[in-house]
Amino acid sequence: MIDKNDEYFMKKALIMAKIAAKNAEIPVGAVIVKEGEILACGRNRRERGKNALYHAEIEAINKACKCLNSWRLLGCELFVTLEPCPMCAGAIINSRISRVIFGAYDPKAGACGSVIDLFSYPYNHLPQKCGGVLKEQCGDILSNFFKKLRPPTD
Amino acid sequence: MIDKNDEYFMKKALIMAKIAAKNAEIPVGAVIVKEGEILACGRNRRERGKNALYHAEIEAINKACKCLNSWRLLGCELFVTLEPCPMCAGAIINSRISRVIFGAYDPKAGACGSVIDLFSYPYNHLPQKCGGVLKEQCGDILSNFFKKLRPPTD
Repeated sequence: MIDKNDEYFMKKALIMAKIAAKNAEIPVGAVIVKEGEILACGRNRRERGKNALYHAEIEAINKACKCLNSWRLLGCELFVTLEPCPMCAGAIINSRISRVIFGAYDPKAGACGSVIDLFSYPYNHLPQKCGGVLKEQCGDILSNFFKKLRPPTD
Repeated sequence: MIDKNDEYFMKKALIMAKIAAKNAEIPVGAVIVKEGEILACGRNRRERGKNALYHAEIEAINKACKCLNSWRLLGCELFVTLEPCPMCAGAIINSRISRVIFGAYDPKAGACGSVIDLFSYPYNHLPQKCGGVLKEQCGDILSNFFKKLRPPTD
């Protein structure tokens, strides 16, 4: 029997990130889990989708709301390979997700502690959070993507 | 010739908020304007849409990206009847909207100064902001909506 721990689901989010990379998108992937089962997944699609809203977490939350036929994702966990930005951290609060698990930290835009911690403010609902799960793998896929975009000039 | 100032477009956002109220949704409306013309509009649809993402600003940004066929809404102004929440303020940053004009302040969730000011952090892009435009009308439509939901018990 598979032990479905945080790393198990982060590996699923990494698969989504890899699909993003293959589609020339910044590789970020997300899955939403309820009671140990994957409910929805998402990946970054901003460039090809030509839409600022098309982050991995937003796609996953959108699908999970449709799946549960509710705007409240109570009891759901969101796994994402990169620390959520303010838009996505706000969507996590709005959707009442119970727990957020992210991989790599984002010092430029991270809203779960790096630039700001949106979950430390007195909103109606605040999720638990856990950062740094498989952070090397989650970070490597991003740095490899950008290395290919900007090959060394010497 | 009509003088299309901030109040002119906020009145358009108020029409969207009124449509939301008629549909039993918390009355918030938004419009996105570029070069003095309305590009997209949105209204809150969370309850009937059963989706945590269905805020007025998100609908308007989604439509504006489709309209311009770009994730960058440079040179666009967003008018919204209520101070944006963190999700929507984050979406405004991500979409490179140039200026945000809101009506009523939101002391519970406002992310443009009331609870937090997301536009004061060192993100890649920060919009100009202007709060309090037609704030009485924008606030009244909300307080009237909640009064009807919770009639006095005495």
